[in-house]
Amino acid sequence: MDSVFSNDVTHKLTHFILGTRFEDLPAAVRHEAERTLINWTGCAIGGARHETMTKAIAALSPFFGPPQATLLGRRERADILHAALVNGISSHVLDFDDTHIETAIHPAAPVLPAILGLAEHAPLSGRDFLAALVVGIETELRIGLAATPEHYRAGWHITGTTGVFGAAAASGKLIGLSEPQMRFALGLAAAQPVGLQEMFGSMTKSFHPGRAAQNGLTAALLARQGFTSSQRALEAERGWLKVLSSACDTKPITDPATPWQILDNSYKPFACGLVVHPVIDGCIRLRRQHGLAAEMIERIEVAVHPRVMEVTAIAEPQSGLAAKFSVYHAAAVAIAEGAAGEREFSDAMACAPGIAQLRRRVAVAIDGRLGKAQARVAILLKSGARHEVFVEHAVGSVRNPMSDAMIEDKLRGLCEGILPPGRAERILDLCRRADTLADAGDIARSAGV
Amino acid sequence: MDSVFSNDVTHKLTHFILGTRFEDLPAAVRHEAERTLINWTGCAIGGARHETMTKAIAALSPFFGPPQATLLGRRERADILHAALVNGISSHVLDFDDTHIETAIHPAAPVLPAILGLAEHAPLSGRDFLAALVVGIETELRIGLAATPEHYRAGWHITGTTGVFGAAAASGKLIGLSEPQMRFALGLAAAQPVGLQEMFGSMTKSFHPGRAAQNGLTAALLARQGFTSSQRALEAERGWLKVLSSACDTKPITDPATPWQILDNSYKPFACGLVVHPVIDGCIRLRRQHGLAAEMIERIEVAVHPRVMEVTAIAEPQSGLAAKFSVYHAAAVAIAEGAAGEREFSDAMACAPGIAQLRRRVAVAIDGRLGKAQARVAILLKSGARHEVFVEHAVGSVRNPMSDAMIEDKLRGLCEGILPPGRAERILDLCRRADTLADAGDIARSAGV
Repeated sequence: MDSVFSNDVTHKLTHFILGTRFEDLPAAVRHEAERTLINWTGCAIGGARHETMTKAIAALSPFFGPPQATLLGRRERADILHAALVNGISSHVLDFDDTHIETAIHPAAPVLPAILGLAEHAPLSGRDFLAALVVGIETELRIGLAATPEHYRAGWHITGTTGVFGAAAASGKLIGLSEPQMRFALGLAAAQPVGLQEMFGSMTKSFHPGRAAQNGLTAALLARQGFTSSQRALEAERGWLKVLSSACDTKPITDPATPWQILDNSYKPFACGLVVHPVIDGCIRLRRQHGLAAEMIERIEVAVHPRVMEVTAIAEPQSGLAAKFSVYHAAAVAIAEGAAGEREFSDAMACAPGIAQLRRRVAVAIDGRLGKAQARVAILLKSGARHEVFVEHAVGSVRNPMSDAMIEDKLRGLCEGILPPGRAERILDLCRRADTLADAGDIARSAGV
Repeated sequence: MDSVFSNDVTHKLTHFILGTRFEDLPAAVRHEAERTLINWTGCAIGGARHETMTKAIAALSPFFGPPQATLLGRRERADILHAALVNGISSHVLDFDDTHIETAIHPAAPVLPAILGLAEHAPLSGRDFLAALVVGIETELRIGLAATPEHYRAGWHITGTTGVFGAAAASGKLIGLSEPQMRFALGLAAAQPVGLQEMFGSMTKSFHPGRAAQNGLTAALLARQGFTSSQRALEAERGWLKVLSSACDTKPITDPATPWQILDNSYKPFACGLVVHPVIDGCIRLRRQHGLAAEMIERIEVAVHPRVMEVTAIAEPQSGLAAKFSVYHAAAVAIAEGAAGEREFSDAMACAPGIAQLRRRVAVAIDGRLGKAQARVAILLKSGARHEVFVEHAVGSVRNPMSDAMIEDKLRGLCEGILPPGRAERILDLCRRADTLADAGDIARSAGV
């Protein structure tokens, strides 16, 4: 592909970042920002006790600065730079956070940890906070679009490599950078990309958005002091776009008509890879419609996109992590429990005899005519009855988004066992009226133990 | 170029890192490590009051952790992670530190800031410290060689992109990582490359090695806690070598016969780009041989490699920074002052009338037959006498290295006005007997204000 380059990409992006006010955001964009905030906050709390977090905190807490910011779902406090890293890890470690399908970027994970810390450190209005969140997300998604698909194909973990720009833009906007300073911040961000796809499957994957948040925040703080960098970090001959992508089209960054990308953000209803979500969705629908229970089931027949059996073919998973890669387990828990959250992908659930029995009743057929968000599910009951459903757009996909109530329930579930009872309602209340808050730092404070 | 890949690059490199003991280092390697240490320490002290440092510390000190480590040449103390960043900036900000010509890597700047902090935090013997320094430098230089020239040509600032491995290797060795942990540390390093050439000419250039030091140290600390990453970060299909370089030859990393690269490290005698060093060398030689002074000079004729006039053609520099890009100024101060240190490239010297007059007496001819380390200098005196010299290998080049005494004098000059009188001798004493120190942290402590 040929590259299409504008010579003033960084200039125009800076203008967008600093020129966009809360008042300019359409109602749908504001609403999506609120949904993103609720979804991300739930994920960060839910991931707070993961082994990845324990190790990161054990390694780095001897070097923490003053206790300026909350580590969501935890008792410790940290300086805002370390809080950005740690909260970023936490929010991505379950792989349960938001996804922008076209770029494969997880938009919130690099941005929110940076600006939540800033909000705790010096009071910021909820409106400024939401505007920064939107602008940060648009910045990383538009840069990601400009470099899609070549940049991802080369092997970069695009959430970390573009996320650093999102964090720098959102943070820089909140701390009042001038236009030249914002260009410096983008330059400092460009010099610190994070993330290779080789790290997928290891703890380093969730380190990527956390480090991106920390790097972007650092970039903004340095730029505020007049720490100089390039003013043309994106488009320069040896700048980010040309060095990190074999081809680009800068139009998504420079064109004022580029649609709001946050409107294409999607949220996972189920705590596993998107690929098995249609099967889970179908099973839960049938369970609800027909009042199914595990002991009624003779056989579960699912037809799936070919990718499903490339990724989730484990028949007899023996751990929660392995269960996330088992379409058999996914179908079984969806029928037996009517849910597929972290609890349904726990070690205990993977080893539960009732679930193991039901898994063996699942038969999988591959159907190349099905789309990635599609599946057919048929349930044969011991009574002889047969129930079928065709899932055209799985819940959580862009065409069939999770409802606000579902996202709120997801947060409630993720808080269970981590925060005291009732706290989820307090967090939801603050997030729902984020645009009226005098101090957006209250959101972070409400999410600490 | 085709790539030559070994499938066990990370494994073999890890073996080299952990298997190399101080006792295994040839005497010449130990001696070069000592020279590198003295040269780097001088540069870090000399850069300590640069505006770049003032801004970095102003931006980041509100987030510093406990005062665990010295900031060289300064009064402040910081946690070891921030000290790695800040000392790394300081040591590169004058562009006066060491250079490995074949790769263009500045070897010490990412490694020493990481391990000096560790040495201050928990006592380490001088022998372990020197072994880690050598292994860190070899690690970054061998990875750099494997990706040369494609990686640099693509636009990466190779000091930051390979330096993170050097810092991780040296730090990981000192904190006792196991082989799998060291591979994790290299994986965490691979995910955090720093530096684009677009940032040259701005403060972000010296930020690169500092951040690389901090990232590599962070990688080692995480790996010690069992924070997982790839075990094959260098050679994997979506690992560092293939993603960050269009071609590679991994032999310099895997071949046990690879020569010690630190033996090719070079040190700058003059505080400006290497390109004008031959001219300065020639002028100083003539001044010494013939007892020259500014008022005796009618005309200075220099013949230079074509690159010189591409980079340093400013005829009438009005600032110290501009003077570094003026072959006219370089020749004039070398004749008038017999030196070309930071003092000779100060704003005051750039504007001194006597120097400005002498600059106008410099005539430059381009000669394509001259090598990059060569120059011819002829001085015509008002008396009618004419003196000439041909510089075949400029002082400081690999073929004509600075003597130990010159490197020590360089450190003394860089300490002037920053540390109290006599302190330079204390630092030199510690560095010279580094292999006998019970606590290598004393080197850092001796360099604080």
